[in-house]
Order: sequence, then C-alpha cells, then structure tokens
Amino acid sequence: MAEKKILVVSGTHGNELNPVWAVNKFKNLIRSSPKSRLFEFIIGNPKACQEGLRYIDQDLNRSFNVSKTELNKNVYEINRSEYIIKKYGLEATNSCPIVIDLHTTTACMGTSIVMYGRREKDFCLAGILQSALGLPIYLHEKDKNQTGFLVEAWPCGLVIEIGPVAQNHYDSKIVERFLVILNFLGEIINYSKNNSLHLPREISVFVHQNSIDYPRDENSEINALIHPLRINQDWQGIRKGDPLFLTKDNNTLIYEGEEKIYPVFIGEAAYKEKNIAMSFTKREIIKFDNHWINNFLNI
Amino acid sequence: MAEKKILVVSGTHGNELNPVWAVNKFKNLIRSSPKSRLFEFIIGNPKACQEGLRYIDQDLNRSFNVSKTELNKNVYEINRSEYIIKKYGLEATNSCPIVIDLHTTTACMGTSIVMYGRREKDFCLAGILQSALGLPIYLHEKDKNQTGFLVEAWPCGLVIEIGPVAQNHYDSKIVERFLVILNFLGEIINYSKNNSLHLPREISVFVHQNSIDYPRDENSEINALIHPLRINQDWQGIRKGDPLFLTKDNNTLIYEGEEKIYPVFIGEAAYKEKNIAMSFTKREIIKFDNHWINNFLNI
Repeated sequence: MAEKKILVVSGTHGNELNPVWAVNKFKNLIRSSPKSRLFEFIIGNPKACQEGLRYIDQDLNRSFNVSKTELNKNVYEINRSEYIIKKYGLEATNSCPIVIDLHTTTACMGTSIVMYGRREKDFCLAGILQSALGLPIYLHEKDKNQTGFLVEAWPCGLVIEIGPVAQNHYDSKIVERFLVILNFLGEIINYSKNNSLHLPREISVFVHQNSIDYPRDENSEINALIHPLRINQDWQGIRKGDPLFLTKDNNTLIYEGEEKIYPVFIGEAAYKEKNIAMSFTKREIIKFDNHWINNFLNI
Repeated sequence: MAEKKILVVSGTHGNELNPVWAVNKFKNLIRSSPKSRLFEFIIGNPKACQEGLRYIDQDLNRSFNVSKTELNKNVYEINRSEYIIKKYGLEATNSCPIVIDLHTTTACMGTSIVMYGRREKDFCLAGILQSALGLPIYLHEKDKNQTGFLVEAWPCGLVIEIGPVAQNHYDSKIVERFLVILNFLGEIINYSKNNSLHLPREISVFVHQNSIDYPRDENSEINALIHPLRINQDWQGIRKGDPLFLTKDNNTLIYEGEEKIYPVFIGEAAYKEKNIAMSFTKREIIKFDNHWINNFLNI
C-alpha cells in the first residue's frame, strides 16, 4: 500500500481533556522516531477546548454532514468541520485516508471502539484492534437522530472512547490508555507494510438498537435516575425484569423487552441534552472477511 | 432553643445535579412528616442549573461578600446572592439561622464537611455530624484568594461535599449519601430540642494551608498532570519525596515540604480555572468546647 497517514483528532469535544493531553505526550514520544511520519494531529474544536465546553454553537461531532447555508454560515462548528475536511480530507494535499477521533465518556465504557455503519475498512481496523487489545466495539447504525459524525467524512475511521472520566478532569491513567492505542496504531501501519498484520477470525460487535430517555414527569423534568444496579454496568447483558431506573419515590422501573440487550453509555453526562439515558445494543459475531484487508491495504 | 429552621441549598453550582435530585427526593419523603417544618429549600443558581453550567457570570459560591455596584449590578450571581439573603437571611421574615449548602466534587473526597473559618456554632454542628457519621472536615481559612462563600452569610453553616462524581452526571449512590445527611440534620434539630444531642470530646479537622497550581510551561499551559499515585488519594498524608505530578516527559515532581500534609480536592475539575491542582491541609485535633453547644442551641 502507498504511504498512508492516520489523522488523530483530539478535543473534538472541548471538555474532554485527556485525549488532548495524550496526543501532546505521544507527539513528544515519537518526535525523533520514524513513527512521527505516520501521523497528523489536529485539535477538533480549539475554541471549545479553551472554554472547557463540549461545543460552542453545536456538537462538532454531529456537524460533518451539514452543508453550509446562509442560515448556518456563522455556526462555529460548521465552519470548523469544513476546515478540517479541507485540511486533511480526501481532496486535501495533506490527505489522511484514516482518521481516529479520541473521546472520553463519563460512562463506565472502559477502553472501547465506536464504529459508524458497516464499512469494510472500519471492520478491518476495528477487528485488528479488538484482536490485539481485546476492546469491545459499539457499532452505531440506523439512528436517524444521531448523524454527522466526524469519522464518517473519511474513507476509514474509528472513534476511541474511554471512560469513566469526568468532563474537564485530567486523569493520567486515562491518558496512559490513549497512549497504548496511539502506539498500537503506529504498529498497525508498520505491520501492514510488511504484510504481517495479525487478523482475527471473527469480530464481536455490540450493534445499536435504540436509545432510551430518562423517565420524565408532566413538565418534561427527569423523574427517575439510572438504577443503582444498572449504573456503571455498561456492556453487561440484561433481560426482562432487570432494573433500569429508580424513581424519586423509590420505585424500580424495569427492562420489559423480550430479548437480551446490552446497555452502553449508561448515564453519559453529555447525552442528557440529547434525551439519552442509555443506548441498547445487541451482540453480533461477524466473520472476518479477508477481502476487508485488501480493501484496507489499498485505502 | 426557639423553633429554628435549616435552609438547604442545592444547585449552587448548576452542573452539580445530585444535590438537587436528593433534595427533591427528600422533600417527597418528609412531605407529610413533622420534619418538613424544620427545613426550607432553595436552588442556589437556577439559571446555571438549566444550562448545566457551574455559573452564568461568576461563581455564586464566591459572591456572598460582593457589594452591588453600578459596575456589577447586572452580574447574575451578585443579584442571586442578594435575593437568597433577602429571602432566608437573618433579616428575612422567613429567616433560617442554619444553612447547609450541598455540593459535589470530581475529586475523591467521599462524604465530607467543609467549614469556613473557626466559628463556634459551625464547630458544634460539624462535630456532631462527624461523631455520628465519621465524616472528615476540611477547615478552609486564611485564603484571601477564595472568599465570599454562601454559608458565611449565615450565623451557622456548613458545606456538604460529596465525590467523586462527574459534573452533569446523575449517580443514585451519591444521591443516597446526601439523603443520609439530610435525614440526620433533621434528627439533630429534634435531639437538640430534647437536649439529647450526642457530643464528641474532640473534633479532627484538616486545616487549609495553601493551594498549589499545576506546573505550567512558558505559555502558562499546564505541562504536568496529577501523578497516578496521587490521584484519588484525597485525605491521605504525604511526606517529603512523595509524588505530586507527572510531566509530559514522564518526570515525577515530588512534594518537597518538610512537614506531613494531607492533600484534598485533588484534580477537582472546576478548580482548574482557579489555578488549583490540589489544596494542602494539616491535621489538627480540637477539644470540643461545651460552650459551643449553648452557642448553637441559642442560635
């Protein structure tokens, strides 16, 4: 494959500090190594980072499918998404065919991968990461309420999502976890050059089904919290009758579906404004298709 | 003592959700009990709560010693502090001589009490809470950079500070901890009526010495994080040579003082803008003075 670069984006959300820190540390570490030629780095939302806010006008990571119009031309994130695509997108002189977008979550997701849709190149990269590092994969698809993600604007791209960690809170243990991923991404590019990539036989993915909101009262105020037995239990399967919420009056609200599901992003702080208390996923095992790797190598 | 009321303030910081939730739950619980007559409740900063921000214009909990002038008369929190004092302060028709201000922290402080200065009534109330519930007490004093705290505007007042919990993140376990405190405050008022308060012989306090900032580079950018061996170790004593920070280049920066100190609010997310990475305290044992209780009863 031709020399290809990975674009690493941190600070896509301005209140997620540890990815930015990890990238600075990583740049220092690889400064005089050949690895440095494999990467480009950009802060997604520098203005929001300065303010310590998720975003200024609207979520940058929902803005990559929004065309600029007279009405939205002053929206900071619309302009920013355009700028990043111009600088590192497919048409750019400094084009990077692979993008990795680094995020943190207040939910107890551990170190995880988020994929958007079933693109073969993404499956290939996610599969390699999963088989080497044992990471769970959340496959986000068919959700018309959540679109315009950054990585979708590149031919191959994944989100690395690590938590739990508070917004605007530095945690050197979280930073270390990002460094493991960044280091390994460099290895993947090197292995792919020598055709020595270790490929898995299958991939295990948690496929998005739907998101549920907090229960609300007649004034649309939240009137139940994530149940103490559900909080911090991301990726753990639940069945009919398992607790979901605990109301103000101490009533337990249960999961009433017939099928076993796996909640993720349980109680994520930033998703309250999106009316999401947690997302339900189903587990799926996908056979690793060896065409994927050619597809990935010829990116 | 005359019938006295406790003013319970939640949402003084708009991104600390669990106190507000706990208060709503508590109000429901005591609705038809005589306990309900012992309390008044107010949301400190309703506008910030709506926005999910710590504050709108400036930190409400640093605004209680600021006089209104031509220049600051439009600052939301200055007006709000004035409003709360007018409604429940000493001169109000609905005056509450005791105030409890409920907060959360992203630091690993557990359930703790914060006192501002050495007021006898505060010592009395804090001592009773500590002896019943085993809570650590942070005595904040002699810090000219941090003034204007809400509780200082009442004759007796404590902050209850519980963490770790992310900003804008609901956690029903944190809510439960606030409920324990609120319940017990009601008991204290009842016990004090029957002269059946259980008083400790001494109080253990962690006395504020100074705060330290993150190490910064020549551009004033933070260039070291809380050391992995220091993060989440609030209230744990450290001595000369113990690690404090880890720099970008993986150098450990140590504590160089001669005296044993106890760091608190380690890495609190909201204190970055105040240039505080952690605060140093010294431990002090104070004999419980029986005059305090009369002072408290005659409040």
